[in-house]
Amino acid sequence: MNSGDIAWMLMSSALVLLMTPGLAFFYSGLVRERNAINTIKMSFIALAVIAIEWALVGYSLSFSEGNAFLGGLSWIGLSGVGLEPNPTYGETIPHLMFMVFQMMFAIITPALISGAVVGRMKFKAYVAFILLWGLFIYNPLAHWVWGGGWLSDLGALDFAGGTVVHISAGFSALIAAAILGPRNTEGKTQEMPHNIPFVILGASLLWFGWFGFNAGSALSAGSLATLAFVTTNLSAAAAVVTWMLLNLVRGEKPSAIGSAISAVVGLVAITPAAGFVTPMSALLIGSISTVISFFAIQFFKKGRIDDTLDVFACHGLGGLSGAILTGVFATTSVNPAGANGLLYGNPGLLLTQCIAIAATIAYCVVGTAGILYFLKATIGLRTSSESELRGLDAMEHGEDAYVLESTALNSTKL
Amino acid sequence: MNSGDIAWMLMSSALVLLMTPGLAFFYSGLVRERNAINTIKMSFIALAVIAIEWALVGYSLSFSEGNAFLGGLSWIGLSGVGLEPNPTYGETIPHLMFMVFQMMFAIITPALISGAVVGRMKFKAYVAFILLWGLFIYNPLAHWVWGGGWLSDLGALDFAGGTVVHISAGFSALIAAAILGPRNTEGKTQEMPHNIPFVILGASLLWFGWFGFNAGSALSAGSLATLAFVTTNLSAAAAVVTWMLLNLVRGEKPSAIGSAISAVVGLVAITPAAGFVTPMSALLIGSISTVISFFAIQFFKKGRIDDTLDVFACHGLGGLSGAILTGVFATTSVNPAGANGLLYGNPGLLLTQCIAIAATIAYCVVGTAGILYFLKATIGLRTSSESELRGLDAMEHGEDAYVLESTALNSTKL
Amino acid sequence: MNSGDIAWMLMSSALVLLMTPGLAFFYSGLVRERNAINTIKMSFIALAVIAIEWALVGYSLSFSEGNAFLGGLSWIGLSGVGLEPNPTYGETIPHLMFMVFQMMFAIITPALISGAVVGRMKFKAYVAFILLWGLFIYNPLAHWVWGGGWLSDLGALDFAGGTVVHISAGFSALIAAAILGPRNTEGKTQEMPHNIPFVILGASLLWFGWFGFNAGSALSAGSLATLAFVTTNLSAAAAVVTWMLLNLVRGEKPSAIGSAISAVVGLVAITPAAGFVTPMSALLIGSISTVISFFAIQFFKKGRIDDTLDVFACHGLGGLSGAILTGVFATTSVNPAGANGLLYGNPGLLLTQCIAIAATIAYCVVGTAGILYFLKATIGLRTSSESELRGLDAMEHGEDAYVLESTALNSTKL
Repeated sequence: MNSGDIAWMLMSSALVLLMTPGLAFFYSGLVRERNAINTIKMSFIALAVIAIEWALVGYSLSFSEGNAFLGGLSWIGLSGVGLEPNPTYGETIPHLMFMVFQMMFAIITPALISGAVVGRMKFKAYVAFILLWGLFIYNPLAHWVWGGGWLSDLGALDFAGGTVVHISAGFSALIAAAILGPRNTEGKTQEMPHNIPFVILGASLLWFGWFGFNAGSALSAGSLATLAFVTTNLSAAAAVVTWMLLNLVRGEKPSAIGSAISAVVGLVAITPAAGFVTPMSALLIGSISTVISFFAIQFFKKGRIDDTLDVFACHGLGGLSGAILTGVFATTSVNPAGANGLLYGNPGLLLTQCIAIAATIAYCVVGTAGILYFLKATIGLRTSSESELRGLDAMEHGEDAYVLESTALNSTKL
Repeated sequence: MNSGDIAWMLMSSALVLLMTPGLAFFYSGLVRERNAINTIKMSFIALAVIAIEWALVGYSLSFSEGNAFLGGLSWIGLSGVGLEPNPTYGETIPHLMFMVFQMMFAIITPALISGAVVGRMKFKAYVAFILLWGLFIYNPLAHWVWGGGWLSDLGALDFAGGTVVHISAGFSALIAAAILGPRNTEGKTQEMPHNIPFVILGASLLWFGWFGFNAGSALSAGSLATLAFVTTNLSAAAAVVTWMLLNLVRGEKPSAIGSAISAVVGLVAITPAAGFVTPMSALLIGSISTVISFFAIQFFKKGRIDDTLDVFACHGLGGLSGAILTGVFATTSVNPAGANGLLYGNPGLLLTQCIAIAATIAYCVVGTAGILYFLKATIGLRTSSESELRGLDAMEHGEDAYVLESTALNSTKL
Repeated sequence: MNSGDIAWMLMSSALVLLMTPGLAFFYSGLVRERNAINTIKMSFIALAVIAIEWALVGYSLSFSEGNAFLGGLSWIGLSGVGLEPNPTYGETIPHLMFMVFQMMFAIITPALISGAVVGRMKFKAYVAFILLWGLFIYNPLAHWVWGGGWLSDLGALDFAGGTVVHISAGFSALIAAAILGPRNTEGKTQEMPHNIPFVILGASLLWFGWFGFNAGSALSAGSLATLAFVTTNLSAAAAVVTWMLLNLVRGEKPSAIGSAISAVVGLVAITPAAGFVTPMSALLIGSISTVISFFAIQFFKKGRIDDTLDVFACHGLGGLSGAILTGVFATTSVNPAGANGLLYGNPGLLLTQCIAIAATIAYCVVGTAGILYFLKATIGLRTSSESELRGLDAMEHGEDAYVLESTALNSTKL
């Protein structure tokens, strides 16, 4: 075991944990005040529910020896997951370290989906949904790509979760938004972000935590982690600048929300590629994926599916762009354990990436629909119209986000 | 010296520092708007006052060689505390590294107490209180348990501060609330949390920082830190789920504040146990302690002691549960340097834990009362009724937390 | 290469990145609500614009071999900046690691300047300004001090950026405030901080991140990083206590904003000294610099230059005090690679420090003025009076920071 590697993995796990509260603030700032608490809590509760699911069964289903599609039950309740390294999952760190690092990924993934359904889903149904989604969607996918399943055998590259985390969450979000239906009480255009500084706070914590997500996925503190750190930051930077230039060209004002969203898109897109591409390729990946997501958001605004906070355009398409561009820009010159992509003379990788993407999408779409129709038939998915109108904070949680007496008082003096 | 261990201890110290601002937001969000700044500042000022106290005398009184009850004066002004390791306090890290890590613990502990007395204590008296409390309560307690004093000789287990930090703060808070008396101007039930997102932000930063608190207490980046990291996260998760299930069973709405408080309870409870128990035991510790704190909060709402933000129920009882359960669940199978608890055939540890707890409580109760009666007789403890009515922000600090002109303006258009 | 050192540098780079959002909140909380978003975005956009500038040309101009005044072009587009160590810039870490750590310094420095010009500068002009300032001011200065330029040859000590970051930003801010002119629409005294908790949040994230800034500047996880960590924390603590004592002596209420500002002053002042002085000297450096900045802020309030958020008094004078006091308190007893200062029998260092300071100031003043007059003549610097009156959030970004319907609604019931 190596103390430097363990130090970095301890820290990376903490960083990825912090991303979920970051997501809570990112999403909460974007919704109306009346749904601010409910939106925060949708992310926060995943920290608890999925952590337990993961320790009890999820880790075993994802990473223990099983078949090509699902792990086994040998590590249930973390039995056999100890303080010695498991060479498959980090030769220099305790097996438990790998387990808890992966736990943080399992936590944030279903929380990402919540952005598509804010403001209209029963909280009870949501909690059941993330538990079932974690069990039946996330665990198999993690096994396919990272746990020795069929996609890793195929040679698909996914450094830190482009398919497992972002494509899966993004496409599941689209299906969830379609099945739940749009918000009732007011048109999409009337939704106003209630606290933009929180959106920036959330995006900042996500950016900060993403270093753990991507550079931590090296499972050690060395060259590979450094490369992933650099590519992560450059992709995010390129995304923010690209979005601002698109604003400029189109004569739009450069918004803070645009900067926050584009940072996330850039971070998503580099996720599958982070340890396989050069820093200059990272700039291109961030830019290209932002152009795609930018126009997708415009397009979806006119559509009938109410993916309220654009989870599909950000995570689904950002992950998709990133996974495909990994097949274009990957090069063994920076990571001999990776592969060469299209630009480096190997079109085969691009094909493999497409198979991995297609399989992930197909599985998520069918699986998420199945879970949601099951919940619709049992617990029910939507809150009452009254709850939706009055806000889920008061109706589902009995709380008001803010009680600003002096501000209210001052206004009477105007 | 080992660079990996130092890297983790540098980071852990930064993480524990961040917990104090986390506490500031956790507490501030729970109070009325008119006391938001005062509440934040009660935590923030500890970062400054206690850091200096610690460097000048506190570290010496806590950790230098002395008698069974108090350290000596040989390390005053950090003389003799250098860049070489002191083998007693980490064989692989500089002695100064251990000093600054412990400084962060000394800072947050008195700040925890502030939650019991918000909204009615003179700021000047509060600053004097934390200084005296640090000197006369915290330093001896740290010496007893970690600095070679009588409780460590006895064999009491306190991995990261269940007795030294949480029981001591929690019981001192109860005494402080009793001596200050309840808030005047309005009933307890009228206190409204003014900013619930801040409560969640604070709880999230506490959770994030707690990895430094508990896993940093291993003083190295290895198996023990990994174990403490995992148990910490699972206890917090179990606490949040347990609280939500209690809500469900009782037909209550699951509140965001409840999630935040229960996360803290779970983190407190695992603190003494983090490096001594299995991950599965951590789930139980988080759950059991939450049930206790949940009902204690209900009970105290009806009582006459106005422990405003439930510091006693969270930290006092959370720490108490954790310290006792350490005596039940500790096992040398995960940490040979620890001990076996009741479940592993050694009822003696439970007795030792109870002695440590009883001694800590007795000392804190008497000492805190002594300090507060002294301050009452000199500076005075309570602000004027007018200050309390108008809010401590304006009266003690000359500040308003928020000036939201546009919101005030918009309201005139409604 | 050493995994512990890499672990700490990965983490330090992430910490310094987080300082820029910290700065965004620190500054944004201090301005009126109508400029909250614009102020945040001035910091946030630097994360993107400067990161790209740095990777494409800035790093090469700062750190590659050139002449005494500027680096060369050999590392343009990071060509030749690889995963092997460059012994000049950290023997135990990848060259790319050093590059990205330094990137974070290049990002925050121009963002610091924004505090002097909030509420009245065209966003487009601001983006052009930070890009040009980064290219023509920051890159040469970084080369002078850290990249093998003439100031490092001279023997000037600047551990983590007292001259390169803080003096340069502070004096440039003063010039920028003078050239832009004061705010139009209301007197200085009417500027009200709109969200003091955000000021504290920002200061807290800055404090947290500053451990990466200062202790990361050791480029390894060992004694030197530990020393810098300890001195950093003690200087900040001494600054906050000193400011509070000044309030006490002058019969003023101790404000939260004062605590936040003084923490930053203490952190700035220790920056050049962090790895060269003893912990007890750090207490003095924090105290002395705070006295200077405290009275400077009083003085500037009456002046005609509208350095809105006191960037000059905090960073310019804080950096100046720190750089001079480094020449007083530096001692080779804690860092043999440093030098002795005045108190340790070497008045020569003080002279060298003064030369470095004077050169930095002269270059920044002339260069910043040149850039701003160029922009004034081309894009124009100031927004329209109408924008200034209505606020830059709506006019430049099309956004309102907060939409608090329920608070607005409640007020109609009062």
